Amino acid sequence: MAFAADEASSQMLNMGLNTLWILIAAILVILMQGGFILLEAGSTRMKNAGHVAGKTIFTIGLCSLVYWAVGYGITFGTDNVENETLSKIIGWGSFFFDPAIAGDPANDNYPTSVFFLFQLAFAAISLSIAWGGFAERAKLSSYLVFTVLFTAVIYPVVAHWIWGGGWLAQDGAQDYAGSTVVHLTGALAAFAATVLLKPRIGKFNRDGSANEILGHNQVFSALSVLLLWVGWFGFNAGSAVSVGDGFFAYVAFNTQLGAAAGAVAALLISWLITGKADITTTLNGALAGLVAITASCAFVDPWAAVVIGLVAGVLVFFSVKLFEKLKVDDPIYALSVHGMAGIWGTLANGIFATQVLADKVGVGQGGLIDTGSWYQLWVQLESVVVCGAYVLGASFLILGVMKLVMGFRVTEEQEIIGLDLSEHGTYGYPEQMKKAQQNL
Amino acid sequence: MAFAADEASSQMLNMGLNTLWILIAAILVILMQGGFILLEAGSTRMKNAGHVAGKTIFTIGLCSLVYWAVGYGITFGTDNVENETLSKIIGWGSFFFDPAIAGDPANDNYPTSVFFLFQLAFAAISLSIAWGGFAERAKLSSYLVFTVLFTAVIYPVVAHWIWGGGWLAQDGAQDYAGSTVVHLTGALAAFAATVLLKPRIGKFNRDGSANEILGHNQVFSALSVLLLWVGWFGFNAGSAVSVGDGFFAYVAFNTQLGAAAGAVAALLISWLITGKADITTTLNGALAGLVAITASCAFVDPWAAVVIGLVAGVLVFFSVKLFEKLKVDDPIYALSVHGMAGIWGTLANGIFATQVLADKVGVGQGGLIDTGSWYQLWVQLESVVVCGAYVLGASFLILGVMKLVMGFRVTEEQEIIGLDLSEHGTYGYPEQMKKAQQNL
Amino acid sequence: MAFAADEASSQMLNMGLNTLWILIAAILVILMQGGFILLEAGSTRMKNAGHVAGKTIFTIGLCSLVYWAVGYGITFGTDNVENETLSKIIGWGSFFFDPAIAGDPANDNYPTSVFFLFQLAFAAISLSIAWGGFAERAKLSSYLVFTVLFTAVIYPVVAHWIWGGGWLAQDGAQDYAGSTVVHLTGALAAFAATVLLKPRIGKFNRDGSANEILGHNQVFSALSVLLLWVGWFGFNAGSAVSVGDGFFAYVAFNTQLGAAAGAVAALLISWLITGKADITTTLNGALAGLVAITASCAFVDPWAAVVIGLVAGVLVFFSVKLFEKLKVDDPIYALSVHGMAGIWGTLANGIFATQVLADKVGVGQGGLIDTGSWYQLWVQLESVVVCGAYVLGASFLILGVMKLVMGFRVTEEQEIIGLDLSEHGTYGYPEQMKKAQQNL
Repeated sequence: MAFAADEASSQMLNMGLNTLWILIAAILVILMQGGFILLEAGSTRMKNAGHVAGKTIFTIGLCSLVYWAVGYGITFGTDNVENETLSKIIGWGSFFFDPAIAGDPANDNYPTSVFFLFQLAFAAISLSIAWGGFAERAKLSSYLVFTVLFTAVIYPVVAHWIWGGGWLAQDGAQDYAGSTVVHLTGALAAFAATVLLKPRIGKFNRDGSANEILGHNQVFSALSVLLLWVGWFGFNAGSAVSVGDGFFAYVAFNTQLGAAAGAVAALLISWLITGKADITTTLNGALAGLVAITASCAFVDPWAAVVIGLVAGVLVFFSVKLFEKLKVDDPIYALSVHGMAGIWGTLANGIFATQVLADKVGVGQGGLIDTGSWYQLWVQLESVVVCGAYVLGASFLILGVMKLVMGFRVTEEQEIIGLDLSEHGTYGYPEQMKKAQQNL
Repeated sequence: MAFAADEASSQMLNMGLNTLWILIAAILVILMQGGFILLEAGSTRMKNAGHVAGKTIFTIGLCSLVYWAVGYGITFGTDNVENETLSKIIGWGSFFFDPAIAGDPANDNYPTSVFFLFQLAFAAISLSIAWGGFAERAKLSSYLVFTVLFTAVIYPVVAHWIWGGGWLAQDGAQDYAGSTVVHLTGALAAFAATVLLKPRIGKFNRDGSANEILGHNQVFSALSVLLLWVGWFGFNAGSAVSVGDGFFAYVAFNTQLGAAAGAVAALLISWLITGKADITTTLNGALAGLVAITASCAFVDPWAAVVIGLVAGVLVFFSVKLFEKLKVDDPIYALSVHGMAGIWGTLANGIFATQVLADKVGVGQGGLIDTGSWYQLWVQLESVVVCGAYVLGASFLILGVMKLVMGFRVTEEQEIIGLDLSEHGTYGYPEQMKKAQQNL
Repeated sequence: MAFAADEASSQMLNMGLNTLWILIAAILVILMQGGFILLEAGSTRMKNAGHVAGKTIFTIGLCSLVYWAVGYGITFGTDNVENETLSKIIGWGSFFFDPAIAGDPANDNYPTSVFFLFQLAFAAISLSIAWGGFAERAKLSSYLVFTVLFTAVIYPVVAHWIWGGGWLAQDGAQDYAGSTVVHLTGALAAFAATVLLKPRIGKFNRDGSANEILGHNQVFSALSVLLLWVGWFGFNAGSAVSVGDGFFAYVAFNTQLGAAAGAVAALLISWLITGKADITTTLNGALAGLVAITASCAFVDPWAAVVIGLVAGVLVFFSVKLFEKLKVDDPIYALSVHGMAGIWGTLANGIFATQVLADKVGVGQGGLIDTGSWYQLWVQLESVVVCGAYVLGASFLILGVMKLVMGFRVTEEQEIIGLDLSEHGTYGYPEQMKKAQQNL
């Protein structure tokens, strides 16, 4: 497609504009990985900091290669489209994805190269959420193997069902930017991991009571939330995958309200109930607000975005308490922030979506309040249950086999000295850790 | 407004393009909060780091809700537009802002949803500047109350006067991106706070001499300046709120020159006068250059941008010394960086603005050098004085009442153990602080 | 050029769209400086952290002013264009660059203000790479002087040769986003510096064996890689300097694959050979993948991007070992990451470029595999050799004279107490360093 400035057609300008926005959105979502590096490092201990931060760069890399080779094709491949039954379940084709072979630009709206990059960024986020369940005790080799399998056969299947024209899409599931596809999927993989790994040494006492294993750096954690918040505008508003008349800005507007409400509600509830305005809870609240608004950001009125965020902020506080009671060790709070808030956000769409906005988005139905119909809420519940069941089943199977075959958890001695030394040979903070040892 | 790629009109493309730029600019301004998290944390002590960083996430959230409910309507509401006198002073309407009710897209240039988000981002920056005066000794509850009142009745009034069609706008005040509206407003609220709170324990000796209370992490501070610098392109160039023929890039160009000159001048002046090239001064210089060029970035020639930055860099060095002499404790240097440089930048517009560029911007007048007329400099001075008086008055009143009614400062004991423990129950750096205690 | 929404022409929309993308790309490249702040600080010791981080803000500032005054004109100035011989070697004109004088918008594609900003961002990156060779022992004054000379007479000459219409451009050199112009140039300046400075105290033993001087913070290092990775999308895809039909997204797509492959290859090779999956090597691998794909990102098929990245990741591992054997102290790994991978990337273009993509880019030739011709590989080799020779010669000359005239390295005592105290008067981590001293 030749291009000269003085004969730029509206169509080419429209494609260029969409491409620019989708690329920027993809970049913002990749920037969120900086948030995860800081969140996971800040929420864990100094002896594991280098491992926690460094392995993320590796797993983003590996995830990118696997998604390029396999994952994208399982989600969006159309070679099997003639087989209606099979194509409801998985996609097939476009492996080792080459935009030139896809005939880029393959449609009038954007080239597939930028769509690929945007979708890859989502897959990598879901994976980074899953690491929450691995933290501070999984072997490095398990990160390698699980990255391959999660990116090839867990995430792409769910993404195909809801976003790739699969059977839940055909049923009318509404998950604008992935409360279920990305967040719940990652959280349930984390859940399977943390159950199979068992809690960290020292997390629970013999009488069942829990100890707080404090993260080592709340500045990292706070900055991480800010980076995630910023990147989330790409995550949510980018999911419009077009610029059009600027409706994606409304999505960003609702995203801001949801995040804000989550942070405020979480701080207040912790202050009210414990007497101390807990920082970690506040940060979790902002993230829970973001996770929850993700499914509904394009479907609801501003007041509903605020309500969804407020509920998410309260929910995350009680959810953290609940998992502690259940003796599930959740170091980065992935189960509460991405899991519980992901479920709430998906269901909230069925409650708060308005018909006017659902028409605007062009794929959906209004929810309970606007239409009086329970239908969409039911569809949303179906999404949560079947996607949840698939992810849980697949994760327990894969991680369970890994545990048997190659071992999943480091030895007790390795865990105590920390993964920086045991898995990588040096501390992430060599000067500070050496001083700490000298003081013993 | 329906949209199909093959019938994209120029008008829709223009709106889409503007929307995209304003959204990106808003995202960049929100990213600046990451800069503030690191700047404020890096410039203070380890025992307060979690508090300092975490409370920013909370106050961004609360500010967003209050601005949505009230602040935006006070700035830009038009329900009272028929009362000419009243509408010069405040706006009214658009409370609990809903873009759909505003009839989005309400004009040909951009939807109000994105304009709201951009304006909200500015309000939150002004608030974060104000925290400079609260640092290391204000009670958490005071952050909560002041966020509400600052966002509802201080910032929006000034913003209305200059940007919302109020009386200073009608007088011809030129403040392209907020040297006065955002920076001076935040700095004067910080001034009121730090005067009412009194200096931190140990800042000044009985003989009146000052001690340096060093911030704990200059890597955080340097990174913060870089993040603020990056975000400032959204702050300044985004204030064009349109793409047009690309003039906003010229604004970015001048912004770079101003920041650069500020950093260079500050390092050199500190090296020259003290014999050591102070890092903190250098960082403050870059920020002062950015603050100062903010009012004038679209109005001046490149050489003038360099001069404005150089002066700001020198000014900030002496200003810090001055406030120490006056026994005003300014932990994050907000009074010098945002206050003094904000005043300088606002006045500089009246000196260096050229008529050609003022015509290009479409609202203004050339300054002293280009036109030989003192008029614009006079208008700029008026802005500084009346906005300054309002912000100072309102801040002293609000914070003074808060001090009486609910208390403003933590107890001496709480200040010594640090706000992380006293306000939130855990250290932000639990491992490092525990080791520090063991060594005592 | 007047502008009204309802008469927006395609031409103006095209210019606005290009301007927006180039500005965002420039902002992303400036954000990479945040990566360099963290990379350089994280890879060095705590006693130098404030110096390392803070001086970057100063040198970005100074570089901006010098590039504005001189460097841009040496690269792109056209006053000497009638002298064919001279204009092959340097540009002349446009000093103290003023976009208005350039008649902005000077062409149909973008205003020169945004082009300037983008090019300035590249110059500053090359300079920040050079600091790798200065780390932990160069005097602050040498940073000042070398910034001026590098920005005025080293970088702009190479940039003119390849990007400014100079003789290598005329010979058909293909360096899409600067594997040679930016990365190799910076790395060779770093090489000259580290050779003239000699190794850090304690780096090599009398028997010639090397000690590992560990960087103090791998969380900073990992986050730095993520920030650089994110910024690199602006670096590479921004080098399209137009939006057109969205081909720049393909460039971003290849960039992701190259980075990913580099990270994966480096972790695996270090794990395989040393038995430990070294974090620093993994991070270097991601960066080496990015550096290597930089020259070829628009010229090669996806599989080739993966191969280029994989080779770069392996190469960087062995290169680090090689420099240690040669007793060259390379604290930030600039010689391996930017030098070796820069050479590899430049040559790889001559191997993997396809004719179809070279035609698309509009300036080039296919490489060895696609065309069977060694021609382009030869041209690429020529670029590396002559640019390398010029940069090495100029750097050794300038730094050698500086060493003689003003001294280049701090005293042994200053190096041992650290540059934070010796050059700036305070520690960058005052609380932690004080505690460390108390423990001695």
